[in-house]
Amino acid sequence: MPLKRGRGGGTGPYRKERETIELSTALDQETLAARFGETRALTESLAEPLSAEDQTVQSMPDVSPTKWHRAHTSWFFETFLLAPRLSDYQPFHPAYGFLFNSYYEGVGARHARNERGLLSRPGIDDIASYRRHVNAAMGRLFDDALDEDGLALVELGINHEQQHQELLLMDIKHVLSCNPLDPAYGDLDVPAPSETPPLSWIRHPSGTMEIGHNGSTFSFDNESPRHRVYVRPFAMGRRPVTCGEWLAFIDDGGYHHSDLWLSDGWAAAIAGQWDSPLYWSRVDDEWHIFTLAGSRRLNPAEPVCHLSYYEADAYARWAGARLPTEAEWEVHAAAEAVDGNFLDPHVLHPSPISGDRSSPFGDVWQWTSSAYSPYPGFEPARGTVGEYNGKFMVSQYVLRGGCCATPQGHVRPTYRNFFPPAARWAFSGLRLAKDV
Amino acid sequence: MPLKRGRGGGTGPYRKERETIELSTALDQETLAARFGETRALTESLAEPLSAEDQTVQSMPDVSPTKWHRAHTSWFFETFLLAPRLSDYQPFHPAYGFLFNSYYEGVGARHARNERGLLSRPGIDDIASYRRHVNAAMGRLFDDALDEDGLALVELGINHEQQHQELLLMDIKHVLSCNPLDPAYGDLDVPAPSETPPLSWIRHPSGTMEIGHNGSTFSFDNESPRHRVYVRPFAMGRRPVTCGEWLAFIDDGGYHHSDLWLSDGWAAAIAGQWDSPLYWSRVDDEWHIFTLAGSRRLNPAEPVCHLSYYEADAYARWAGARLPTEAEWEVHAAAEAVDGNFLDPHVLHPSPISGDRSSPFGDVWQWTSSAYSPYPGFEPARGTVGEYNGKFMVSQYVLRGGCCATPQGHVRPTYRNFFPPAARWAFSGLRLAKDV
Amino acid sequence: MPLKRGRGGGTGPYRKERETIELSTALDQETLAARFGETRALTESLAEPLSAEDQTVQSMPDVSPTKWHRAHTSWFFETFLLAPRLSDYQPFHPAYGFLFNSYYEGVGARHARNERGLLSRPGIDDIASYRRHVNAAMGRLFDDALDEDGLALVELGINHEQQHQELLLMDIKHVLSCNPLDPAYGDLDVPAPSETPPLSWIRHPSGTMEIGHNGSTFSFDNESPRHRVYVRPFAMGRRPVTCGEWLAFIDDGGYHHSDLWLSDGWAAAIAGQWDSPLYWSRVDDEWHIFTLAGSRRLNPAEPVCHLSYYEADAYARWAGARLPTEAEWEVHAAAEAVDGNFLDPHVLHPSPISGDRSSPFGDVWQWTSSAYSPYPGFEPARGTVGEYNGKFMVSQYVLRGGCCATPQGHVRPTYRNFFPPAARWAFSGLRLAKDV
Amino acid sequence: MPLKRGRGGGTGPYRKERETIELSTALDQETLAARFGETRALTESLAEPLSAEDQTVQSMPDVSPTKWHRAHTSWFFETFLLAPRLSDYQPFHPAYGFLFNSYYEGVGARHARNERGLLSRPGIDDIASYRRHVNAAMGRLFDDALDEDGLALVELGINHEQQHQELLLMDIKHVLSCNPLDPAYGDLDVPAPSETPPLSWIRHPSGTMEIGHNGSTFSFDNESPRHRVYVRPFAMGRRPVTCGEWLAFIDDGGYHHSDLWLSDGWAAAIAGQWDSPLYWSRVDDEWHIFTLAGSRRLNPAEPVCHLSYYEADAYARWAGARLPTEAEWEVHAAAEAVDGNFLDPHVLHPSPISGDRSSPFGDVWQWTSSAYSPYPGFEPARGTVGEYNGKFMVSQYVLRGGCCATPQGHVRPTYRNFFPPAARWAFSGLRLAKDV
Repeated sequence: MPLKRGRGGGTGPYRKERETIELSTALDQETLAARFGETRALTESLAEPLSAEDQTVQSMPDVSPTKWHRAHTSWFFETFLLAPRLSDYQPFHPAYGFLFNSYYEGVGARHARNERGLLSRPGIDDIASYRRHVNAAMGRLFDDALDEDGLALVELGINHEQQHQELLLMDIKHVLSCNPLDPAYGDLDVPAPSETPPLSWIRHPSGTMEIGHNGSTFSFDNESPRHRVYVRPFAMGRRPVTCGEWLAFIDDGGYHHSDLWLSDGWAAAIAGQWDSPLYWSRVDDEWHIFTLAGSRRLNPAEPVCHLSYYEADAYARWAGARLPTEAEWEVHAAAEAVDGNFLDPHVLHPSPISGDRSSPFGDVWQWTSSAYSPYPGFEPARGTVGEYNGKFMVSQYVLRGGCCATPQGHVRPTYRNFFPPAARWAFSGLRLAKDV
Repeated sequence: MPLKRGRGGGTGPYRKERETIELSTALDQETLAARFGETRALTESLAEPLSAEDQTVQSMPDVSPTKWHRAHTSWFFETFLLAPRLSDYQPFHPAYGFLFNSYYEGVGARHARNERGLLSRPGIDDIASYRRHVNAAMGRLFDDALDEDGLALVELGINHEQQHQELLLMDIKHVLSCNPLDPAYGDLDVPAPSETPPLSWIRHPSGTMEIGHNGSTFSFDNESPRHRVYVRPFAMGRRPVTCGEWLAFIDDGGYHHSDLWLSDGWAAAIAGQWDSPLYWSRVDDEWHIFTLAGSRRLNPAEPVCHLSYYEADAYARWAGARLPTEAEWEVHAAAEAVDGNFLDPHVLHPSPISGDRSSPFGDVWQWTSSAYSPYPGFEPARGTVGEYNGKFMVSQYVLRGGCCATPQGHVRPTYRNFFPPAARWAFSGLRLAKDV
Repeated sequence: MPLKRGRGGGTGPYRKERETIELSTALDQETLAARFGETRALTESLAEPLSAEDQTVQSMPDVSPTKWHRAHTSWFFETFLLAPRLSDYQPFHPAYGFLFNSYYEGVGARHARNERGLLSRPGIDDIASYRRHVNAAMGRLFDDALDEDGLALVELGINHEQQHQELLLMDIKHVLSCNPLDPAYGDLDVPAPSETPPLSWIRHPSGTMEIGHNGSTFSFDNESPRHRVYVRPFAMGRRPVTCGEWLAFIDDGGYHHSDLWLSDGWAAAIAGQWDSPLYWSRVDDEWHIFTLAGSRRLNPAEPVCHLSYYEADAYARWAGARLPTEAEWEVHAAAEAVDGNFLDPHVLHPSPISGDRSSPFGDVWQWTSSAYSPYPGFEPARGTVGEYNGKFMVSQYVLRGGCCATPQGHVRPTYRNFFPPAARWAFSGLRLAKDV
Repeated sequence: MPLKRGRGGGTGPYRKERETIELSTALDQETLAARFGETRALTESLAEPLSAEDQTVQSMPDVSPTKWHRAHTSWFFETFLLAPRLSDYQPFHPAYGFLFNSYYEGVGARHARNERGLLSRPGIDDIASYRRHVNAAMGRLFDDALDEDGLALVELGINHEQQHQELLLMDIKHVLSCNPLDPAYGDLDVPAPSETPPLSWIRHPSGTMEIGHNGSTFSFDNESPRHRVYVRPFAMGRRPVTCGEWLAFIDDGGYHHSDLWLSDGWAAAIAGQWDSPLYWSRVDDEWHIFTLAGSRRLNPAEPVCHLSYYEADAYARWAGARLPTEAEWEVHAAAEAVDGNFLDPHVLHPSPISGDRSSPFGDVWQWTSSAYSPYPGFEPARGTVGEYNGKFMVSQYVLRGGCCATPQGHVRPTYRNFFPPAARWAFSGLRLAKDV
C-alpha cells in the first residue's frame, strides 16, 4: 500500500518554538522595483534567440525547457508575492501553479520534473503573456509600500530568477549539444588562442577564521550563520586549470588509471565512457568543444569546463595537489574584488587566461572538496521558501566563484553553489590547492 | 568504444615525490600471532550455525555471502602477506585471487560484486580448507621475525577480518530477513521489555579541539592526521534514541510529512515505501522486528536500529534537535571508556536501555551529520592497501561508536565507519545533539 | 568488445539466387502524380492545427514528433526515388538522411528512435521547406516517364505517407494526453450518445479458403502470396465491441480476475495499473475519455478503442467468445465493400454504432488472435524497401480493418496491420468471433 | 492506487456454461504408481551430484534452483492430489504452498519467481524429507482405487515432473556456466569428433492434413484438438544443423549482417553482444563450448544447441532456407518412431551426427516458425490445472522434438514445447525446411 504523504503537521516532543527567521533587505523599494524590471527583461533577452522548438525540449531529467524557466520564475513571484499580497490578484491560469512549481512541497502537488519536456502547451506565446501578466501585477504591487518581508521576498525572487538565467543557458547548451546538426545558440565572440603562464601559488597562513555571510546585503540562507573554522596553512592556485593542462592529464592516461580516482568516480567514468570533459570530442585527431556558438577547436588557454567533481578530484590527485575546501576558498577570496568574466550575452564561454589574472571569480565554477552541509547553527528561511536550500544538503558538493553564465552582481565570496558529484553540465571547472 | 582502463602509471607534472607513509604497530609478533589465531577462530565460530545453503545466498548487491566473507578475509592475508613474504608459498587455488578480491584495483581483475551469489563453488568445505591453508602458512610466516611493515600488515589484516565479522552478521541478517519462513541465525538471549528514563543531555563548551588518531596503537588511515577543529558549544544526548521514541515519531506522522525530510530522503522514503525502520513490520496492529533470533515483538527500551541517514536526520528535525557532527561526537566520546554492548554471540542485538547508561559506544552505530571526507593532510596508506579507505571518501556519511555486531576491542573514539545515506542494513541508530 | 555490425554480405552455402520480386502498379503516371500531390497536401493539413511546440514533443519511444513524420515521409521519396533517379538532384540537407531514416539498416546509420524528441532543429519552417523541396523535385521527376519500378515506388511512397498520416494522429493524441491542461488537437464534431442494438452474429461455413492479396492493385508485400487455409465453421460479431459493453466488463471485475487473462497480460495489467482502456479516466464517478477534441464523457455506443491485445483477449474470454484469426477476419470481410468511418478531419474518433451497421472496416482496428508471421512462400520486396515489413514478423499480432485515423482508400480486405500485444496507443478495438 | 486483483468471479453476459473437459488416462493405477516411483527417483538421482550450494543458486530470473524444482514437483502432487483426495493428509509445512507454487493464480499467493535464489531455507535435507513425505502419502493414496480424474492427475503430475527434470538440467547448466571455475555437473561421456554427411532433404506433398493429439495416450491440453491444416509442398532437412555448419555462418559474418535478422533479433544480438550461440567461447582462437561436463573443444559434428529463435531464423535465411512451421514438423514426424538421444545421465549433451540419422526426435529441440497459439477449438483443462499451458499462448514460439535432457518416453509427435524468441538456455537447435 503506497503511503499517503503530505507536508506539515508533526510536532516532535522536544520541538522548540522556532524563532522565525525574518527575511530582510538593505535595498529600498525603488531600487528593487528597478532591478526587478531589469532582471525580468534579461531573462526574455536570453530566450529571444531561441525558437519555439528550442524552448520546448528537455534533453535529460536535470534539464528544464527554456520556456519552463521563463514560467517558473514568474510562478515564484505569483506564489510568494502576488497571491498572498495583492488583493484581487487573479492567477494567470489555474493549472500553472501545478505545472510550474519546481520542488516546493509546501505549496502542493506539482508536475513531474522529468516530464517537463512533454508539455507542448502552454506555448511560448502563452508564457510571454504570463510573464507580462506577472510583471504588470508586480507593478501594481509596487504602487504601495511593501513591508520589510515583502521587499526581502522581491529580492529573493530577483536572485532566484538570476539563478534560472544561468540554468537556462546551461540547459539549452545541453539541449543543443544533443543535436547532430551542431546548432548554435547564437553568433558569439570567439577569442583567438593565446599563451597561458605557468601556474603560481598564493599562500595563506593557518588560523581560526570566520566564514559565512554577515553583512546587510542579500545572501541565501545557506550562507549563514557566519562562524569560525580552523584552517591549516595552504596555497591556492592563482588561476583555474586550463584546457591545455587538461590535455596533459588526458595524454598521461588520466582517464585510464584507477589509482587517481575515487571509487564512485571510477565507476561513473566507466559507465559513462568518459575520456574527456563533457562537450569535448576528437575530430580528425584534434580536440573540439561544443559551445553556445557551436563546435570549434579547443583553445588551450581557456579554463577547462564541464567537469564532474570526480574528474576535478582525479586531476588534482594527478597534479600532486588537491581541491580546496570551501573554507579555504572563501578565505582566499574574501579580500578580492568580485570581478571576473560573468554573463556577457556576446561571450557565454570561459575566456582564455593570459597575463597574471588572479581573481577567483567568474569564468568557471570551482569544485571544492566540501560536501554541501548546513553551517553550524543553520536555520532555513521561514515558511515555504525555507525549502529553497536546506533540504538539498546531502550528497552534493560545493562550488564557488560564479561563471561565464552567472549574471553580473549575482555572486559574492560567501556564495555556495552545489551539484551532485557526477554532474557535468554546469560551467564547472577547478582551481588547485595544496598544503604548505 | 569502451575504454581500456587500468591502474598505475600517470605521473602529473606537479606530482610530488610522495613520502611513504610507513605502517607501524605497537604490538609484538607474539601478541599479533595470538590475536590472528583468535580472530580467525571467531570468524569460523560465527559461520558455524549457518548451513551451506545459508552461506551461499546474496540477497542484494551490497550483501556478500557468508562463505565469501570467510574466503575474502583469507585472501587478504594471502595477497598482502603470504604471496609477497613467504618464500615458496603456494596459493591455495589459482582463481581465488580473482574470485575473492573485493575492490582492490591495484591487484588486478576481480569477480563482479553483484554476482557473488552466483558462485555455488567453491563450497563451504573448500573454503574451510582454504582458511586452514592460509592459517598454516601464516603459522610458517610467524616462525621467522617479521619486519615492522609486516607486523603492521598482520594487524591490518586482523582488523580487516574483524570488520568482516560484523559485515557477515549484518549480511546474513539481511539474507534471512528475505525468507518468508522467519528463520533464525540462532537461539539467542532476548531481554524482557523494560523502562527507559527520559533523555537527558551532556553539555560541552566551545573551543578549538583536536580530533583524529594520534597514538601508537592501531588505527585506520582515515582517522589521521590528528588535527584542530573549532567546535561551538553543544549538548549530546546521554543515550541513543529508543524504539519507543521512534514509535512516537511514527505515530506523529514522521514518515508522512515532507518538511521533516531532506529532499533525497523524501524521494527514497516514497520509492521504498518506508513507514518504519528496516526489519519492522506490523502484525495484528503490533510492531514486530526481525532479529537474528527471528521475528519478535518490539521492545520499546531498545535503541532503534537499521535506520538510514535520512530517517535519522528527519527524526532529529522532528525532535527539535539535530545529528551531531563527527567532531562533536569524538569530543564527547574522547573521555569515555570504550565500554558497551559489542559482539556477544549470545545476543547480537542492541540491548534495552535502563538506568543511567551513558557510554557512547556499542549497541548501535550512530549517524553523524558529517560527510565522509579526508581529514586535512590525509594521506592514504602506501601501496595497494591505500585503497582500503581513501577512495570511498565521497557521498557517504560517518557513523561512530560501534554496535552489537562489532567485535570486542575493535573500535575506539577516533574510529570512522561510513555508509551511503540510504543504507539501512547496518546496525545503525542515532544519538541526538543540539546547540546550547 | 562491442561487435561491428553492418548490413549486406554473407552468402550462405545454400543461398539460392533470389528471383527479384518486381514491384508493379496498376496506376498510370498521371494518376500517381495527382495522388502524390493530394497525399502530400493532406499530411500538411493534418499538421496545420499544431504549433511548433506541439510538433516537437516525443512522449514515449514509440511516438514520433509530428515534424519528424513530415520529414521522414519526405526522406522516403528523396532516398528511394529522387537520389537514385533524378539526375543532379541536390539533397535538401546532408544530415537529413541520418536524422530521418526510420529503420532501414540498408541505407546506413540513423538517429536513435527514442531521441527524436531531443531535436529542436530542424524547426517546422525548415521542414516545410524540405517538403516543398521534395515536392518540387518530384514534379521534375514526373516530367519524364518513369519505368514500372519507379511508378511502383511512387505508389509505395504514397501508401507509406498514408500510414504516417495515421501515425501522426495516433502520436499527437498520446503527446497531448500527457498534458494536464487537457489540450485539444482541434474543435471536432462530437455525436450525441445513442442506443446500440444487441450483438448479433454472422455465420461462416468451414472449408479450404484462400486469403492474401492477388490483384493488380497496390498491396504491401506482407499480404502475399495468396494461399490456402483451412477454416472451421465460425461466427463473427456483426459490429465491434462498444464502450458500453466494456463498462460491463469493468463492472464485473474484468481487470481483477486473473483467470480471464494471458499470463503476460496479467503482468502488464498489474505493472501498468490498468483498470480501463488507455485514455479512460474516472472523474467524479463518471467515465471520461480523452479524445483529439479533449476530454469528454464516455459515449457507450462508440466502439471501444485503445486496447492492448491482452485486454481484447481477456474481454473475449469473459464474453464466452474469442478473437477471430486473421484468416477468419479476411474470409468475413472479403465480400464486403471497403466502406466505413475512415479519416475525416472533422471527426478523428470512432463513431457511435446504431442500427444495423455491419461493415468490418473503419472506426477501430480489430485485434486478431494471429501472430504476425510471413505467409507461406512470402518474399520481401527487393532491395532496401524489403525492410518495410518482413523484419518485423515476430512477437506482434495482426489487426485488421482500418480506423477513424486511416486515410480514405488506404485499406483493403487483405491489409495486415500489426502491433506488439501490450501496445495501446493505436486506435485498436475488437470484434468477437466464436466457434459454431 | 494499485489494483486489488484476484482470481475467479467475473461471468460475462455471453459466457457459455463451459463443458468440463474431463481429464483421462489410458493407464491403470498399478502402472501409474510404478511410473510415479520411477519418476520421483529419477529426479533425486539427477540432483544427487549437486552440492547444497549448487542446489541453492538462481542465476537469472528464468532459472530456478535445483532444490526448488525438487520441492515444486512435490508441491504439485500435494496440491492437486493429496490435499483434496487423501483424508487426514497433513501438509508437510504450512508455508510450502506459498513457497513452491510456480504460477497458479488459482491456488493463491506465491513467492516471487525472481527471488527463489534468496531462500537458503528450506535446505536440501528438508526438501528430501518433503519429497519422502509426499511419496509416502502418495503410497497411501494408491492403496485405494483412484477415480479416472485422479488417475489422470497422477499422470499429469508425472509428466509435469519430467518437464522439471529437463528444466533442472537446463537450469543447473546455466548456474554452473556463470562460475569462472569452469565447474562440471559430472564426469560425462564425451564422444570423439567425427564426420557429418552433407545435408539432404525429405520431400512432402501438399494437402489438407491433420495435426494435434487424438489418441488415448497422455498428452497436454495444448496438443488438442486434432484439426485440419492446409500444408503446401515442402522439404525437411534430414538432420539438424551442426556446429560445423554454424561455424560457417559465423565465419561468413552471420552475426554481423543486419539483413539476415529480424529487427527484434538484431536488437537482441547487439544488446547481448551475441557473436555465437550461448555457451560458446573462443579460447586461443579455438571455439570451446561449456557443457555439463565442463568446458571443452567444440565438436563440429554435434547438432548446434542453445540458440535463440532469432539466431535460428537468421541462419535459415542465410542458408537460403527457412524454419519449418509446426504443422510441417508434425507431418514430417508423424510417421517416425519416437527414437533418439534423450536423457541419458552419462551424456546430457547432443550427440555427434554421423551416417544417415534421420529421426526428428532427440538431441535438440527444434525451433519452428510458429507462434505458440491455441489450436482451433482449444479448451484448457478444467480447474486450476487449466493454467498449465493456455495462459502462456502469446509471444512465444513452438519447438518440437525433445532433446538430450528430455526424459525417455516424454515426447511424442504432437508435443509442443515453447519459449520466448530470445531464450537461449534450453537445449534448442534447428532443422531447416524449404519450399519445393
